[in-house]
Amino acid sequence: MLQFDLLATDSSSHARRGQLTLNHGVVQTPIFMPVGTYGTVKGVMPRSLEEMGAQIILGNTFHLWMRPGQDVMSSFGGLHAFEQWHKPILTDSGGFQVWSLGDMRKITEEGVHFASPVNGDKLFMSPEVSMQIQTTLNSDIAMQLDECTPYELKGHITTADEARRSMEMSIRWAKRSQNEFHRLNNPNALFGIVQGGMFEHLRQESLEQLVELDFPGYAVGGVSVGEPKEDMRRIMAHTPHRLPANKPRYLMGVGTPEDLVQGVASGVDMFDCVMPTRNARNGTVFTRYGDLKLRNARHKQDHQPLDTSCTCHACAGTSGVSWDQGGRGGFSRAYLHHLDRCGEMLGPMLTTIHNLHYYLNLMQDVRNALDNNRFAEFRQQFATERARGV
Amino acid sequence: MLQFDLLATDSSSHARRGQLTLNHGVVQTPIFMPVGTYGTVKGVMPRSLEEMGAQIILGNTFHLWMRPGQDVMSSFGGLHAFEQWHKPILTDSGGFQVWSLGDMRKITEEGVHFASPVNGDKLFMSPEVSMQIQTTLNSDIAMQLDECTPYELKGHITTADEARRSMEMSIRWAKRSQNEFHRLNNPNALFGIVQGGMFEHLRQESLEQLVELDFPGYAVGGVSVGEPKEDMRRIMAHTPHRLPANKPRYLMGVGTPEDLVQGVASGVDMFDCVMPTRNARNGTVFTRYGDLKLRNARHKQDHQPLDTSCTCHACAGTSGVSWDQGGRGGFSRAYLHHLDRCGEMLGPMLTTIHNLHYYLNLMQDVRNALDNNRFAEFRQQFATERARGV
Repeated sequence: MLQFDLLATDSSSHARRGQLTLNHGVVQTPIFMPVGTYGTVKGVMPRSLEEMGAQIILGNTFHLWMRPGQDVMSSFGGLHAFEQWHKPILTDSGGFQVWSLGDMRKITEEGVHFASPVNGDKLFMSPEVSMQIQTTLNSDIAMQLDECTPYELKGHITTADEARRSMEMSIRWAKRSQNEFHRLNNPNALFGIVQGGMFEHLRQESLEQLVELDFPGYAVGGVSVGEPKEDMRRIMAHTPHRLPANKPRYLMGVGTPEDLVQGVASGVDMFDCVMPTRNARNGTVFTRYGDLKLRNARHKQDHQPLDTSCTCHACAGTSGVSWDQGGRGGFSRAYLHHLDRCGEMLGPMLTTIHNLHYYLNLMQDVRNALDNNRFAEFRQQFATERARGV
Repeated sequence: MLQFDLLATDSSSHARRGQLTLNHGVVQTPIFMPVGTYGTVKGVMPRSLEEMGAQIILGNTFHLWMRPGQDVMSSFGGLHAFEQWHKPILTDSGGFQVWSLGDMRKITEEGVHFASPVNGDKLFMSPEVSMQIQTTLNSDIAMQLDECTPYELKGHITTADEARRSMEMSIRWAKRSQNEFHRLNNPNALFGIVQGGMFEHLRQESLEQLVELDFPGYAVGGVSVGEPKEDMRRIMAHTPHRLPANKPRYLMGVGTPEDLVQGVASGVDMFDCVMPTRNARNGTVFTRYGDLKLRNARHKQDHQPLDTSCTCHACAGTSGVSWDQGGRGGFSRAYLHHLDRCGEMLGPMLTTIHNLHYYLNLMQDVRNALDNNRFAEFRQQFATERARGV
């Protein structure tokens, strides 16, 4: 099931405040969804995800198909019991990962033939196969199989003709995905994905054809795929708000904190991105006052937490009181700098908790602003604070 | 400060139940101390250590001297604030790590000259330097600098003459350590370390000379250094119970669950070992019913937790109810097997929590048995259960 209730709209932008009811629970939007590729958000316990207010997480269909595979997932009745996460899950279609295999895959109208990167087995992915796997995963939101149109490939920037051919196949795959999803009596919700590359008229065509198929929700795909930032902003400004107002809108794979706030203003309800988790492991930390490079030697002696305004476990410990409020229970930049230098696991464990908390808390602030009809003010304050420097 | 209260003694063995009061808290003995080399028990948050009942953890003086170094540690007023662990800490002397540098170090009566494995700097370790570093760390229990007599070196088994020369230098270093510790007005407790290799008469001499120096506690070093198991058992049976009854006894670097129970029976109060943490990262799990190799393919589909009787977070989740008691909140062997195959951090995070919980809980069971005057029965049951097979 999927029910979407539009709770409020912003007068200064396309931003909306909504509530999404799914088989495993209710999600307040706009929302950021942490990415849990292999059935785990890297380095984070499910209990920590709950504590930081995660409402819905992602799983990657392709990865979970490779390992542990369909037989194991089936025996657990899906991904929730397997990974011990009992709130909603969204799974991608596997299309992007198959596409990323490059020379190891061959795409046809029927689907994608490829060699398993784990054991070399010859495998076949199609809209039908993707729906079968996602049905086994029992994700609350499944995604249609699409072809993610690249911005450029081997130095060649995708033309409008190429983007159209790709988009039109994704539309045909959307129908096949929908048919198979229904045939399988999957009790969850299937989203269609708007493609069309960097071309507004193709985005418009894709969107209209998908709306005719009447999906319960829609995603915007094929952004944040290597294009210049201005192209991404252009498509973000064009597409989301043209999607049906009464259905949730998901911008795939985006992005920085600034991108998220811009995306909300463009009418997006849902986001996912590996940036907070991946950057955490590389020592890049997001804070209210800008980004922090933990590996910089200036942090060697710094007793402050990553973000003096933050109440996450890394910054405030079990007390939950931020440094700015007098809390001294958190871990210092000096300690986290040390853990990073020594390659200690606790380093990425704590920075990941912080970065995810930052993203989730940012979305909470966005929802509060929308609830109180002060989103325009919020955006201004957000931009000023982030530019201040940490 | 250090106060040791002997609460009970076992009639069937040399086992004792005690209570150790230190500057950062009270420790119930017999106790296992998790190893936190670089200021972190690898992969475990301090809050998890508290939840699993850790009372005292180790830090490695040599590692912390190299990174983050004395300046950082000094600015934090010691290791407790740096790593956010506010209960007792024991630090080793750094002697074992310097010795392990092999050809990169030169040992003389004065101390050890060596090249930093981190940046090649020429450094010098001596009893005085070790005491200075441990004073900066402000560990509740510091260890004297000793020379850990090897069982064998490059195929040559240490002779009684060699073991005597080494042991006698360790005694001289004990005196120098003690003098420097007092000169520094270190408010914590310094332990002497019994050496003497695999020779009972040397162990006896070492012990007697150390007892004359009147340390507040004593360790048995130079076991579990590559010797055959029967030699280790022989020294364990000889030395600990000959140490002063009114002072805590620490067996360094030991060992398996069976070694710990044997050690308690031999009169040992304190243990440390990297085995539960290191083995966890390699997929070897300790359980009530024997050891489990997580990488074995037979766990691929196994829905049971690692240990069906265990209440740790890995086995019982946030419920704290074991599988045997009907709890189904834990992580399955299938899931942990999958995480290990995929190289996901959550795998070692959970197996480490389990293994440490197992060791700490085993010591809790030992203490309960001693409190209830049924240690002999406990040992029998322990051996039977561990032999059952998981």
